[in-house]
Amino acid sequence: MLVFHTALMRPPVIDNLQYAKFSPRIFEEMRAGGVDAVHVTVAYHESFREMVLNLEQWNRWFEDHPDLIFRGTCAEDVLRAQQSGRTAIFFGFQNPSPIEDDIGLVEICHQLGVRFMQLTYNNQSLLATGCYEAEDTGLTRMGREVVAEMNRVGMVVDMSHSAERSTLEAIEHSTRPIAITHANPAWWHEALRNKSDTVLRALTEAGGMLGFSIYPHHLRGGSACTLDAFCAMIGEAAQRYGARHLGLGSDLCQDQPDSVVEWMRVGRWTKRIDYGEGSAAAPGFPPMPTWFAGNRDFGVIRQGLLAQGLSEAEVDGLMGGNWHRFYAESFGPA
Amino acid sequence: MLVFHTALMRPPVIDNLQYAKFSPRIFEEMRAGGVDAVHVTVAYHESFREMVLNLEQWNRWFEDHPDLIFRGTCAEDVLRAQQSGRTAIFFGFQNPSPIEDDIGLVEICHQLGVRFMQLTYNNQSLLATGCYEAEDTGLTRMGREVVAEMNRVGMVVDMSHSAERSTLEAIEHSTRPIAITHANPAWWHEALRNKSDTVLRALTEAGGMLGFSIYPHHLRGGSACTLDAFCAMIGEAAQRYGARHLGLGSDLCQDQPDSVVEWMRVGRWTKRIDYGEGSAAAPGFPPMPTWFAGNRDFGVIRQGLLAQGLSEAEVDGLMGGNWHRFYAESFGPA
Repeated sequence: MLVFHTALMRPPVIDNLQYAKFSPRIFEEMRAGGVDAVHVTVAYHESFREMVLNLEQWNRWFEDHPDLIFRGTCAEDVLRAQQSGRTAIFFGFQNPSPIEDDIGLVEICHQLGVRFMQLTYNNQSLLATGCYEAEDTGLTRMGREVVAEMNRVGMVVDMSHSAERSTLEAIEHSTRPIAITHANPAWWHEALRNKSDTVLRALTEAGGMLGFSIYPHHLRGGSACTLDAFCAMIGEAAQRYGARHLGLGSDLCQDQPDSVVEWMRVGRWTKRIDYGEGSAAAPGFPPMPTWFAGNRDFGVIRQGLLAQGLSEAEVDGLMGGNWHRFYAESFGPA
Repeated sequence: MLVFHTALMRPPVIDNLQYAKFSPRIFEEMRAGGVDAVHVTVAYHESFREMVLNLEQWNRWFEDHPDLIFRGTCAEDVLRAQQSGRTAIFFGFQNPSPIEDDIGLVEICHQLGVRFMQLTYNNQSLLATGCYEAEDTGLTRMGREVVAEMNRVGMVVDMSHSAERSTLEAIEHSTRPIAITHANPAWWHEALRNKSDTVLRALTEAGGMLGFSIYPHHLRGGSACTLDAFCAMIGEAAQRYGARHLGLGSDLCQDQPDSVVEWMRVGRWTKRIDYGEGSAAAPGFPPMPTWFAGNRDFGVIRQGLLAQGLSEAEVDGLMGGNWHRFYAESFGPA
């Protein structure tokens, strides 16, 4: 039984997507920013065995910095993080590559702590169609099986990088609410990675969650997007979909070198360069908006949301309370 | 805090080593025999990735037979098994092959539920020397590092198939008690796999556990060994080492075809046949003693031990209470 000690504790702050170049300095910034939980990406194109190497790196960080971070596997860990002044780190995949062609690896990965898995990363996968493909054929035969298995064990289906039909079919086929951990509404900023009103309504009506991205390619005006514009968009989304289905998924790639965005885009699926959301003229990571440079800046967003006239309770939910509730409903067996 | 409900519950029965050809029928026999926990082997020669396939098979069994078995990871699970009328299955390796040359895989395997690992299986490994090698050079450089890591995360060092010096060095180097999960004293039956009095004294004086094997090659008289002779040996061992350091590790290979004993002996390390404890004339699994055909026969051993004049409390410990205490001390972080 999860008890929310609302009288004792400030509401949790959760960033539901980061792929920073993690380091003790960033873990300290998480504490300085009051970030209680972060969903971090542990695979883009890795095989199972390669992904395990990434988990080993996290285990080393957990061993070396137990005063700052620990592995989170359940909603209670967010409270444990608050109580002990640390940040709970939750694992997720942006691509199903670590389960290879083996449905049994879904439960193995869940046993290793993985709590989110995207069915695609831009391209067609064994499970569904990515948002960069010309044709979207929806969930594959294996995709339907894997969604059912994820539902069974308590791993969240994440469709952030998936195409429209595939996303709608995942929402429909999944027996548990799903997530779009890091994207924005296409009605605010048209982009392959942003989501249609149809998708966002279906997602939230089924109890799913949207995490707002601060990755500049997902922002109206890109790196020049203002805090006010970003928070006004959230206010509009709260009116359309209900604030309780919304949270943050900053997509923060703090300190990463540009070689990493190339790995994210190209992996090993092509020998040519693919610029993804970038271009030959601007192939690297775009500069972040001035008001959000990293983990210390979550208080700025809270202030921006309050300035939109959202209630204290709504803002508490947007800053982490909604993800916390979703964690409690999503990470255990069906 | 582990609470032993001695007033409410019979003492647990634990078999601390089996490599049966597991099936629903055997799981039902575990229940019929009142076996509350079994340590099962999930790797002999497997790489990490191959071992994960064995865990996937166990996950399927857990999913398909939740009324009979579940994955055990801590001592409390033995009580949970008793309370729910099921058998808790604990995982172990008879060889360090699944950690390959990567110390980070120790914690990964622990996170997947593995609670015992032999440092060697008969041959020299990356960690220590097996009991079939001509020369025993003790713990290797990596062996000392891995023992420390196993101590840290709560994975038990098992020296059942290791050579004398390596075993003594593991007892000495380990900061936590270790185990010999399945072997008998060499003073009762001289065999490469049975253990010297020196080893058994060092093991038990350091708080470690010995599990008595019922594999015929480890028995005086082989398959013809009587229950009385087996239990008299246990009585003698209890006098020498203290009953509280002793338990069962039957090494039961129920229903396995002879192809499996060949895999256990030969793996992929040779292209020739190696008969191990068998011979060209008797290459297969030896027949079990008439009094122990499988998981239904643990009550017979209890009666045999009581007939030796061991006290009820001593027999309770030998049948599982001692392993249960050892689990409580061994499976958590240091």
